Amino acid sequence: MVGHAFMGAAHSQAWRSAGRFFDLPLNPVMQVLGGRDMARTAAAAEKLGWLDCETDWRRLVERDDVDLVDICTPGDTHAEIAIAALEAGKHVLCEKPLANSVAEAEEMVRAAEAAAAHGVRAMVGFTYRRVPAIALARRMVAEGRLGDIRHVRAQYLQDWIADPEAPLSWRLERDKAGSGALGDIGAHIIDLAQHITGDHIAEVSGQLETFVKERPLAAEHAGLSGTASAERGQVTVDDAALFLARFRGGAAGIFEATRFATGRKNAIRLELNGSRGSLAFDFEDMNVLEYFDAEEPDETAGFRRILVTEPTHPYVAAWWPPGHGLGYEHGFTHQAVDLVTAIAEGTDPTPGFAEGLQVQRVLGAVEVSSDTRQWQQVPA
Amino acid sequence: MVGHAFMGAAHSQAWRSAGRFFDLPLNPVMQVLGGRDMARTAAAAEKLGWLDCETDWRRLVERDDVDLVDICTPGDTHAEIAIAALEAGKHVLCEKPLANSVAEAEEMVRAAEAAAAHGVRAMVGFTYRRVPAIALARRMVAEGRLGDIRHVRAQYLQDWIADPEAPLSWRLERDKAGSGALGDIGAHIIDLAQHITGDHIAEVSGQLETFVKERPLAAEHAGLSGTASAERGQVTVDDAALFLARFRGGAAGIFEATRFATGRKNAIRLELNGSRGSLAFDFEDMNVLEYFDAEEPDETAGFRRILVTEPTHPYVAAWWPPGHGLGYEHGFTHQAVDLVTAIAEGTDPTPGFAEGLQVQRVLGAVEVSSDTRQWQQVPA
Amino acid sequence: MVGHAFMGAAHSQAWRSAGRFFDLPLNPVMQVLGGRDMARTAAAAEKLGWLDCETDWRRLVERDDVDLVDICTPGDTHAEIAIAALEAGKHVLCEKPLANSVAEAEEMVRAAEAAAAHGVRAMVGFTYRRVPAIALARRMVAEGRLGDIRHVRAQYLQDWIADPEAPLSWRLERDKAGSGALGDIGAHIIDLAQHITGDHIAEVSGQLETFVKERPLAAEHAGLSGTASAERGQVTVDDAALFLARFRGGAAGIFEATRFATGRKNAIRLELNGSRGSLAFDFEDMNVLEYFDAEEPDETAGFRRILVTEPTHPYVAAWWPPGHGLGYEHGFTHQAVDLVTAIAEGTDPTPGFAEGLQVQRVLGAVEVSSDTRQWQQVPA
Amino acid sequence: MVGHAFMGAAHSQAWRSAGRFFDLPLNPVMQVLGGRDMARTAAAAEKLGWLDCETDWRRLVERDDVDLVDICTPGDTHAEIAIAALEAGKHVLCEKPLANSVAEAEEMVRAAEAAAAHGVRAMVGFTYRRVPAIALARRMVAEGRLGDIRHVRAQYLQDWIADPEAPLSWRLERDKAGSGALGDIGAHIIDLAQHITGDHIAEVSGQLETFVKERPLAAEHAGLSGTASAERGQVTVDDAALFLARFRGGAAGIFEATRFATGRKNAIRLELNGSRGSLAFDFEDMNVLEYFDAEEPDETAGFRRILVTEPTHPYVAAWWPPGHGLGYEHGFTHQAVDLVTAIAEGTDPTPGFAEGLQVQRVLGAVEVSSDTRQWQQVPA
Repeated sequence: MVGHAFMGAAHSQAWRSAGRFFDLPLNPVMQVLGGRDMARTAAAAEKLGWLDCETDWRRLVERDDVDLVDICTPGDTHAEIAIAALEAGKHVLCEKPLANSVAEAEEMVRAAEAAAAHGVRAMVGFTYRRVPAIALARRMVAEGRLGDIRHVRAQYLQDWIADPEAPLSWRLERDKAGSGALGDIGAHIIDLAQHITGDHIAEVSGQLETFVKERPLAAEHAGLSGTASAERGQVTVDDAALFLARFRGGAAGIFEATRFATGRKNAIRLELNGSRGSLAFDFEDMNVLEYFDAEEPDETAGFRRILVTEPTHPYVAAWWPPGHGLGYEHGFTHQAVDLVTAIAEGTDPTPGFAEGLQVQRVLGAVEVSSDTRQWQQVPA
Repeated sequence: MVGHAFMGAAHSQAWRSAGRFFDLPLNPVMQVLGGRDMARTAAAAEKLGWLDCETDWRRLVERDDVDLVDICTPGDTHAEIAIAALEAGKHVLCEKPLANSVAEAEEMVRAAEAAAAHGVRAMVGFTYRRVPAIALARRMVAEGRLGDIRHVRAQYLQDWIADPEAPLSWRLERDKAGSGALGDIGAHIIDLAQHITGDHIAEVSGQLETFVKERPLAAEHAGLSGTASAERGQVTVDDAALFLARFRGGAAGIFEATRFATGRKNAIRLELNGSRGSLAFDFEDMNVLEYFDAEEPDETAGFRRILVTEPTHPYVAAWWPPGHGLGYEHGFTHQAVDLVTAIAEGTDPTPGFAEGLQVQRVLGAVEVSSDTRQWQQVPA
Repeated sequence: MVGHAFMGAAHSQAWRSAGRFFDLPLNPVMQVLGGRDMARTAAAAEKLGWLDCETDWRRLVERDDVDLVDICTPGDTHAEIAIAALEAGKHVLCEKPLANSVAEAEEMVRAAEAAAAHGVRAMVGFTYRRVPAIALARRMVAEGRLGDIRHVRAQYLQDWIADPEAPLSWRLERDKAGSGALGDIGAHIIDLAQHITGDHIAEVSGQLETFVKERPLAAEHAGLSGTASAERGQVTVDDAALFLARFRGGAAGIFEATRFATGRKNAIRLELNGSRGSLAFDFEDMNVLEYFDAEEPDETAGFRRILVTEPTHPYVAAWWPPGHGLGYEHGFTHQAVDLVTAIAEGTDPTPGFAEGLQVQRVLGAVEVSSDTRQWQQVPA
Repeated sequence: MVGHAFMGAAHSQAWRSAGRFFDLPLNPVMQVLGGRDMARTAAAAEKLGWLDCETDWRRLVERDDVDLVDICTPGDTHAEIAIAALEAGKHVLCEKPLANSVAEAEEMVRAAEAAAAHGVRAMVGFTYRRVPAIALARRMVAEGRLGDIRHVRAQYLQDWIADPEAPLSWRLERDKAGSGALGDIGAHIIDLAQHITGDHIAEVSGQLETFVKERPLAAEHAGLSGTASAERGQVTVDDAALFLARFRGGAAGIFEATRFATGRKNAIRLELNGSRGSLAFDFEDMNVLEYFDAEEPDETAGFRRILVTEPTHPYVAAWWPPGHGLGYEHGFTHQAVDLVTAIAEGTDPTPGFAEGLQVQRVLGAVEVSSDTRQWQQVPA
């Protein structure tokens, strides 16, 4: 695994827990942790339970005792590491967004396709797909319970930089992060909306906003936190990204990703309206899926609060009895389970790099549209 | 109508509106308002839209131009006025609780039975029965959608005297109010629980609490509000009433009525669990009934938030389109509609005085049980 | 009053109730009801409580016993009636949207300005402004509790034509209704968003959708309901309207109005995020306003569910004790109170026709933008 | 660890994860797993990550490589194992309820007191105390934010045997389980209510109900599930337990534990009303604590939905960023952290066995009261 910040901790817990609750066809061993600084990487390896560590990711991806490279670094390094790992014949799990540009993502897809020819697998980490309520939503749409989808409403609301004095982190610098709310959190709701509907966005009209253009420099730039200093730097990414969309199948989409929604902490909200029913989800109440069945008589119809903790729900049987909810990290465990299973079975894990590229193309179209102030097609 | 405080305003709006939205077989005329003080009664009559007024309720109940007497006074006067009115051949609508004691209530039932022999009708004002969501709940239970009822959970939570410096009103004096939270608001949840289940409480174990035993005297004692004075008086009623219950049909009941539930303003909460389903209601969100259908597959089962604003819902067709909710006063309008209809059709309105007496018997059993610290039977 | 369908009933209840709960400086008399068909109009007048009726609105607006004309007809007739009434020296209350086009609305504003010179008042019926929770929201924003507004999220979700077999009503015909969801319900959320923020929309990027292009003809075309016939007609308005917006003050807006949100009945949802706090509202729970105070310590900060039923809340003191909620129609009563008060005091009621015109300009810009597929400025 | 069913899996995940997220002063090693059947125990040890296994718990508690014994077996074995372990000088973590009777619990407390003299620690596993929202509730009460507590409302609602054909498990047999809903889930809400308020229950009036008296025998009796057989057996425990309570400090308590609340899966609901504020919690939305501050002005007061995911909240800083919720199992991890810390620091972990005994005394008083149909004192 390369990277040991927030994502590194989540992925480590996943690798550690997957085999304890699920029956895995292979037994993952947490072999080598990669980082930049030896002392900090060694401490992280000890803490997170990795057997060894490396400060040069190039060495890590070439080691014989490594079969799978899990990339948890900032977006500007994804392409280089992933391509090297795939070329070295290692399976790859790469955090989202796949890359910082469409061009990089295209290269990665080519590398993944070449590797696939030798049975090497590549997956991109849109982990929210594996929250049980989301997986149930997809299943219900696939079963036709919503009929024709007319509306897709998607929001990803956070507030961690609503304070203008919150310091500049690498996530606010274009050269490291690629974009701001758009790529960091907007990518998730684009992926979820397309995944659940089984449809693709055809065109968009976008609006990117940077409310606070200058911020105090952080003492250090790793991660979300840091101490403010007197010096100030430019915010070079969007604070919020909004866009209208048309899906290929005719649904009208409306998307909003922001880090300025005061009081909303990690509100991934999805709502789908179809001719036969509707679904609604909010990650701040992540074990619940709301469902309206339009075929019920009016007298007793209403949005049902499905507590997604039954053994019949996706992934849940491996865990606790009904009503004993799961948390954020469980999505990562399910991702690890599905990836290991795909590798063992010789199938392609989803979402693959091509799906990551398609999300990247939507992100790109939103940026172009925001610049040209016109609707923009997403290449198929 | 006798009385022109809070209940008088609500009843006046009901008489004024009933015929505007519903097709009534008779046209109610708001003839005479009764009060104690001429100037204030006349002002109230003008404000509320009554044609005439009286300061002696005995004259009012005997007037030829009065067919129906609507009693909105404190509980200690109900028996006397209602009996006089029934003896004078007037239909009676009497606010709840029917009386301040079982003995008074029994007398009233006798008077009502005697009057019924001449086609004179008597109704007690348990108005919450006519909130559409409550009426729907009763219908669903009657249809068997809940199966055998095992649990009845009922709370009536207010906080208007949680502050120990809130002044002493007539509602806190035993000789005027009969009891405190028990009779004022506990009576409502007893009636609702029995009404919705169609079952009666067989025995109870009660607990009455007076948290604040002395309060500043109010400058005036009419109604809920008033200015505090330096003098203090004894609180002679309960601040909160809690009791366990067994229903004749075997359900386990748990009841709580309090004026000390800080932050709860008028939370009438009901929850029923049966072998086939459950219902939940909270008056603070009064246009909603929650329903769990246990015969749904686990995968999609969940409490449904039924927005009780469809034309198929009780009383709703007379009002607005779906989603345009009703308010507190509409229950009074529905009560007026049902009473006028019963009078015109020559049938007994519900709840009649006998139902009011039965609630009074439960209230009495809770008081006895609280004194004896033992379970107490409710006479059938 | 001209018109006696859904809006006519709501306005009648307002005129009937206003003086019973509020102290009005003038006493409104429900004099003449206007309609097209004599028998139906007379029946409606009797039912709704109007003293007289007319089938020619021109006669109605000229009657000496009429001081104020309340226009509750479809949008294509607003301009003609309102202008005639104003020229006849009658105060006017006109249902929203003010007109079916910007040009008509401009004419109406000119007529209102001319009339204002003689003390004649004109108001447009954006009644939701007077829901207590909305009025409280505006007050809180005006007090600075939200700081700088960054995000305005507004949805008006209904589902009454989600069924493709729902019949064609006049509301789905462009020549009568002007537009579909955009003007009918989108106008409300535009007005509310601008009213609460005290800011105006500067530019928009719009998307209009008609999901079902052809529907069975209704047996009759008055109102929302009707019986389907075998013949089919074209839907000539939008089923849903979505748009992005920039406010003059810098906030990013996102708007959606639809009649295809299966399971949502009258969900007017507003959410504002500012530098100091946030507000959220949903009309399906209309007595509640949610408020997040960003200046609270993290430990205890959270969205508060303010039950807007306290005497200190706008309009509430005239009604019931805390926790006893109001319903849909109360906004109309408050509108009547404010209009009568403004007339008596010789001030301009709000929203006046100029505000109605400004909303019309936003509606117009959304339509242009949807056609040109580009951002469109709203004239100041 | 002894026992490897539901609780065994939860405890194993706790031991596995504690040191990965928290800085522990000692490094727990998952040494030996105890079970009855060698094959099944060995398989469980492999699955759950224990190094060795034993089928005789007496050997396990005497092994030199065991420092702490974690007891996850049914209640009828707790006393014997715990006392043996304490006598062997091993620290003990014992699942709740502490024992199946007050007499057993008293013996266990004596053993714990004797062991404490040699620095050996004993803890009882009321794990819900360590859900962050619950820990926050206790902190807020301790800080005086609620003022004098007047009401404690506690419910533990499940529905796993609402179906009369659900099979008989060991949890429904008095000789193994001691009691039914009362001891299994009622014990949790008694502990939580006393823990959060920092007060003890002084007296109770109880009601035990067995709705379904006979059930099909399960093919096997371990755990909650099993296959029904044709034979039937007696249910010898309560299906539901309800009781009224008075706390020593004067609060009125109302408690309900049931396995028949159709649609409620693991609804631990707590509500406290005090003179200065209120709190409400529901485990089905476990990352939220609702708080009403009575010192807010009425205009903006309301129950706040505190998302208990901030670094300032108990235990949260070790986990994920705000808005990324925890799940059921995290309470067990926090329990492990606190126990290891107490052992290392030489302090008594809470809750100790004496607290477990006090809960047992409340359980006992409820049973006596239910039999005698009178209020019953809880020994101090």
